[in-house]
Amino acid sequence: MLNSGSLPPVVDHVHVCENGSQLVELLPATNDENGGVIVDLKEAMEPAAFATLLGVSLAQWKRQGKKGVWIKLPIKLANLVETAVKEGFWYHHAEPHYLMLVYWIPETTSTIPANATHKVGIGAVVLKDGKEVLVVQEKSGIFQGTGVWKIPTGVVDEGEDIFMAAVREVKEETGIDTEFSAILAFGHSHKTFFDKSDLLFLCMMRPLSYDIQKQELEIEAAQWMPFEEYAAQPFNQKHGLLKRITDICSAKLQGDYLGFSPRPTTSFFSNKSSYLYSFNTRDLN
Amino acid sequence: MLNSGSLPPVVDHVHVCENGSQLVELLPATNDENGGVIVDLKEAMEPAAFATLLGVSLAQWKRQGKKGVWIKLPIKLANLVETAVKEGFWYHHAEPHYLMLVYWIPETTSTIPANATHKVGIGAVVLKDGKEVLVVQEKSGIFQGTGVWKIPTGVVDEGEDIFMAAVREVKEETGIDTEFSAILAFGHSHKTFFDKSDLLFLCMMRPLSYDIQKQELEIEAAQWMPFEEYAAQPFNQKHGLLKRITDICSAKLQGDYLGFSPRPTTSFFSNKSSYLYSFNTRDLN
Repeated sequence: MLNSGSLPPVVDHVHVCENGSQLVELLPATNDENGGVIVDLKEAMEPAAFATLLGVSLAQWKRQGKKGVWIKLPIKLANLVETAVKEGFWYHHAEPHYLMLVYWIPETTSTIPANATHKVGIGAVVLKDGKEVLVVQEKSGIFQGTGVWKIPTGVVDEGEDIFMAAVREVKEETGIDTEFSAILAFGHSHKTFFDKSDLLFLCMMRPLSYDIQKQELEIEAAQWMPFEEYAAQPFNQKHGLLKRITDICSAKLQGDYLGFSPRPTTSFFSNKSSYLYSFNTRDLN
Repeated sequence: MLNSGSLPPVVDHVHVCENGSQLVELLPATNDENGGVIVDLKEAMEPAAFATLLGVSLAQWKRQGKKGVWIKLPIKLANLVETAVKEGFWYHHAEPHYLMLVYWIPETTSTIPANATHKVGIGAVVLKDGKEVLVVQEKSGIFQGTGVWKIPTGVVDEGEDIFMAAVREVKEETGIDTEFSAILAFGHSHKTFFDKSDLLFLCMMRPLSYDIQKQELEIEAAQWMPFEEYAAQPFNQKHGLLKRITDICSAKLQGDYLGFSPRPTTSFFSNKSSYLYSFNTRDLN
């Protein structure tokens, strides 16, 4: 049905030529860097029309030797999900406003990359004069009502740098301005959110202000607490991870511990700015 | 329509009682830890039946003061996606075999947690006698055909520990058995895969075997190369990140650099085993 002769301007999905034959346009697609195509669908359409377009497009991409086919369906086009799945597509990932489906044309094993696997968080150790640590009690979560004083923690937003997230979270929860110092350690835990894993970076911070203005929504109380008092809390002493973190902070306080600090660099793959976190008390250059 | 009196055994979605009134069963749901419910749908059904069940269930959960509602739809139930979206659900995340939809019942701001944001990778520095480094040339990717020798790199699988991934990738690509030594540094880059970010951990490894058996599918060539020769490659000297990594390895070779090592611990939130990576040349305990 497809030929390479001169076609009438494309204004609808199906074209009837002068000789009566019907021509079907292809889905709008751009090439990706791995020999595949990406369809970023925006226009509403009926499942039947989509099925026709998809079938013809797949046949064409197969002839062209394309490999992976990505279809990004905005949530308003949820009516087309079933059609794509019937055609053999599977889910790759989803965000609130879209679903990404994928299909592998060659008969070889798919090299479609896996989805994101991790959430990233920070815990912030803010020390005043090397003696007092900034602690909070949370209104919800596992420590709610336990009386446990903990360091501020939070989630690193999508696209946010770790050291920026630490500064932001401390500011949001306590009103304290801080300067990032170093990553002292990080924890890696699995199946923390469905099948996803967590990386939690323990960040040492220097306070730039001292007057606490606690956040009302999430924080029950916030204060500067003598570090020994914080460390001596039964919960910290009992729980292996917290005990270890407390020990690391003690060592850091005594000058016996160094951490990783960020240096701006350029991403290996994309030339976008990125950060390399490393141990840098010596100037390696 | 719902009452708490004795109901006939549930064998279908709609029940007709002796007095003629109809009762609709609720979607099968379990409570989550945050005041919400999780529906793990497995049975095939028609969109119309699902719409009825969902509407009644939402009304009931609202009366019960439930907050977040999660619906896990296996891909074989793709015919129900549109119905959930019409009811106000949005996408939370997706994996190849299912789509997770979510809805927030209260009038307050949703506290539904964000989706996973990161992919995690490793780069492995395997040093023989402190002088030669294990390097590969890849058959595909950005270095294909460039003649550049690089250290083995790879993706940390879902649920896999970083140090295990480093051991696995080196074995897969080169056949060399290794023992994990330390994380020397890590890089953080954004928008590397759609809107997701990358964390790449640079791992120092000790070889336990020396005979290279390269993997055929991905690896063009593999060899032990004098570290100076590896470092002197123009690509490594030109690119800031690689230059820095090379400098870190040099410092490590000279004994001037320490890294983070994993210690088993217990996850803070779930009591599952997890690892804390920290600087541990001194025994902090």
